[in-house]
Amino acid sequence: MSLRDEVVRVAEQTRNAARSAAKLPMTAKETILLKAAEALRGQRSFLQEANAKDLEVGKSRGLSKAMMDRLTLSDKVIEDTARGLEEIAAFPDPVGEIVRMWIRPNGMRVGRMRIPLGVIGIIYEARPNVTADAAALCLKAGNAVILRGGSEAANSNEAVVAILKRVLKEQGVDEHIVNLLPTTDREAILHMLELEDLIDLIIPRGGEELIRFVAQNSRIPVIKHYKGVCHLYVDEAADIEMAIRLGFNSKVQRPGVCNAMETLLVHKDIAEAYLPAMAKRFREAGVELRGCERSCKIVPYMKPAAEDDWYAEYLDLVLAVRIVDSIDEAIDHIALYGSFHTESIVTKNYMAAQKFLNEVNSSSVIVNASTRMSDGGVYGLGAEVGISTTKIHSYGPMGVEDLTTTKFIVFGDGQIRE
Amino acid sequence: MSLRDEVVRVAEQTRNAARSAAKLPMTAKETILLKAAEALRGQRSFLQEANAKDLEVGKSRGLSKAMMDRLTLSDKVIEDTARGLEEIAAFPDPVGEIVRMWIRPNGMRVGRMRIPLGVIGIIYEARPNVTADAAALCLKAGNAVILRGGSEAANSNEAVVAILKRVLKEQGVDEHIVNLLPTTDREAILHMLELEDLIDLIIPRGGEELIRFVAQNSRIPVIKHYKGVCHLYVDEAADIEMAIRLGFNSKVQRPGVCNAMETLLVHKDIAEAYLPAMAKRFREAGVELRGCERSCKIVPYMKPAAEDDWYAEYLDLVLAVRIVDSIDEAIDHIALYGSFHTESIVTKNYMAAQKFLNEVNSSSVIVNASTRMSDGGVYGLGAEVGISTTKIHSYGPMGVEDLTTTKFIVFGDGQIRE
Repeated sequence: MSLRDEVVRVAEQTRNAARSAAKLPMTAKETILLKAAEALRGQRSFLQEANAKDLEVGKSRGLSKAMMDRLTLSDKVIEDTARGLEEIAAFPDPVGEIVRMWIRPNGMRVGRMRIPLGVIGIIYEARPNVTADAAALCLKAGNAVILRGGSEAANSNEAVVAILKRVLKEQGVDEHIVNLLPTTDREAILHMLELEDLIDLIIPRGGEELIRFVAQNSRIPVIKHYKGVCHLYVDEAADIEMAIRLGFNSKVQRPGVCNAMETLLVHKDIAEAYLPAMAKRFREAGVELRGCERSCKIVPYMKPAAEDDWYAEYLDLVLAVRIVDSIDEAIDHIALYGSFHTESIVTKNYMAAQKFLNEVNSSSVIVNASTRMSDGGVYGLGAEVGISTTKIHSYGPMGVEDLTTTKFIVFGDGQIRE
Repeated sequence: MSLRDEVVRVAEQTRNAARSAAKLPMTAKETILLKAAEALRGQRSFLQEANAKDLEVGKSRGLSKAMMDRLTLSDKVIEDTARGLEEIAAFPDPVGEIVRMWIRPNGMRVGRMRIPLGVIGIIYEARPNVTADAAALCLKAGNAVILRGGSEAANSNEAVVAILKRVLKEQGVDEHIVNLLPTTDREAILHMLELEDLIDLIIPRGGEELIRFVAQNSRIPVIKHYKGVCHLYVDEAADIEMAIRLGFNSKVQRPGVCNAMETLLVHKDIAEAYLPAMAKRFREAGVELRGCERSCKIVPYMKPAAEDDWYAEYLDLVLAVRIVDSIDEAIDHIALYGSFHTESIVTKNYMAAQKFLNEVNSSSVIVNASTRMSDGGVYGLGAEVGISTTKIHSYGPMGVEDLTTTKFIVFGDGQIRE
């Protein structure tokens, strides 16, 4: 069987299973997720044996320490994953919700009912815990899923999927609701991305290179985010103490993630009062500051920023700083250099808050809170499937609900078109 | 300037204009739409002169009568188009609506606010009235639009766009909110479909061939529907008189459109009571019937259906008829042969209605009404931008609201991530 045929076979099995996934009652999905959590815990040694093989190969390939860390299914990672499944089990089930219903002049009631998307393809890299996580989120929304993990985690992913399939079978449910591509060959991704009649949505999770590869080769809709160049704008009417706290948290609390601040914009009339104190806190935390000309005059130990710095996603203890003449200049800066992820304003001024909320169209627009708050969990969506920085279908953190769509339903009593 | 450069230039102008389109106040959009309606009426002779050129070329190219009809900007078409713009002006404005807002344990309020998509590309064929219509719908939702009409209507489309641009300028608004590609060369479509950083969504309107061409070549998300193989299922518990009325309306009222019924499914226990009377009505209306073996036994003048008939979108006075043993068989038939457009059940039985509603996941699922009711106008969405039979972003008839997305907005008072 050719590689392409193999990929098609898996996709067809998943497509068939999607109909039974869509029909699963709430309670059946809950039971499956709880049993899966139990099984992951109970079969820890089975998982860790498989994982050990991956770790060995990883070591011989000279993977970085960070990569090896992400690859490791430690007791803690397994426990966290199991707890994650239990949390997903406890979410409200989105399927079947009637989000609105209205009546028409002819007496017909028209509504929109939430239904699963069908088959979701998840393409991801080294973390084997994503396997259980992504499968659980898709299942909760009534979807079937095709997983394509990275080669580094091949044995671990197979073990996780084997456990999930066993639970599905024990519950009398089609095991093909969760499928793993049988090969980690990159060519298999290309074959997968052609199957627009079998797969409804592709979600790539991983580095920018993987995401671009997927986006450029897919016939299937892709939900993606490339990067997070997040801004905090300190308005002239900011509470300075709050602006320091939010600035510090936005940059320093976890600099390596996509909702960390990358550029600090400061109104000219507050810069002298705010920047020196803020910069001092940053310097103490080891943050390298790269400022515009005016910022450097106020804080002499800043390095001068180059044009590239305004576009940069450092993911590190580095920050670009720019003084702006007005809120309009801040909004223009964000429109030009931003990546549609998250922007926050610090202000006590009602008009400024409203203007920022209305005119910045990034996926999260925040007033008086850290950019780090932009997160599915923090927002109360439950677990996050990913973040979308493109506007089609979903924009911002994606929860289980974003793995559904709505169909129109109509209750008539004999209406015809005249 | 190369063709590609020209397309990029237009797309860049539109992208720049999208920011001002997004900020337009409700009342400004209303005024523009009302003034545009007035201008179309007032400049009827200018429009018809341009249209005459297209008609002349069309005649010399030997376009079919139907094509020539669709191409003609008669007084009536211009009046209808102007009225359409007035109706769109009167719709509720979706931009800025906060669709939900909730509070988090840390006191943060999180909500989702409706915003425009940005730049929408509409690729369509001969009808020049689509030009005004599509531009108006995009504008109402705060978007900028790039139109690419067919070569047959080149002069008419240019005239319509010239009028719209003049209105925009008179209102002090960026005229590039509405742009027409300067060429109808098909290669220009290919260049347009590559500009994923400049265009947010592509909506092709036209024949299946055009739609497939667009879908297969686009880097930009495409919302599309290929065809409507719509089913009416007459349940064993149907009201026979209603089933005849709905069957007749679904097939005969306007057979050439996508929400007309193409296959009639009949429960075996009602077939003898229902089919002869229904078939008689169809025969009187000149409908050719192609039945399964059992149907042909009950109605001897039916032709036997071949496997292909279950997939067929006749768009004509032809109907496939099949007797099924159960509602499950009807649902399976729809899942196998359907096109996710519209399916309707006729029944007095509560359980059957619920089962059909829950298990059929086409974009419109109807109980006791004609398939012809599946329409943006009939549903109360106002004008229809198109119909989507794929589940990403929008599923079913698309109204102005479907030309928006939601961003997350957050009202904090200093929250940070711990």
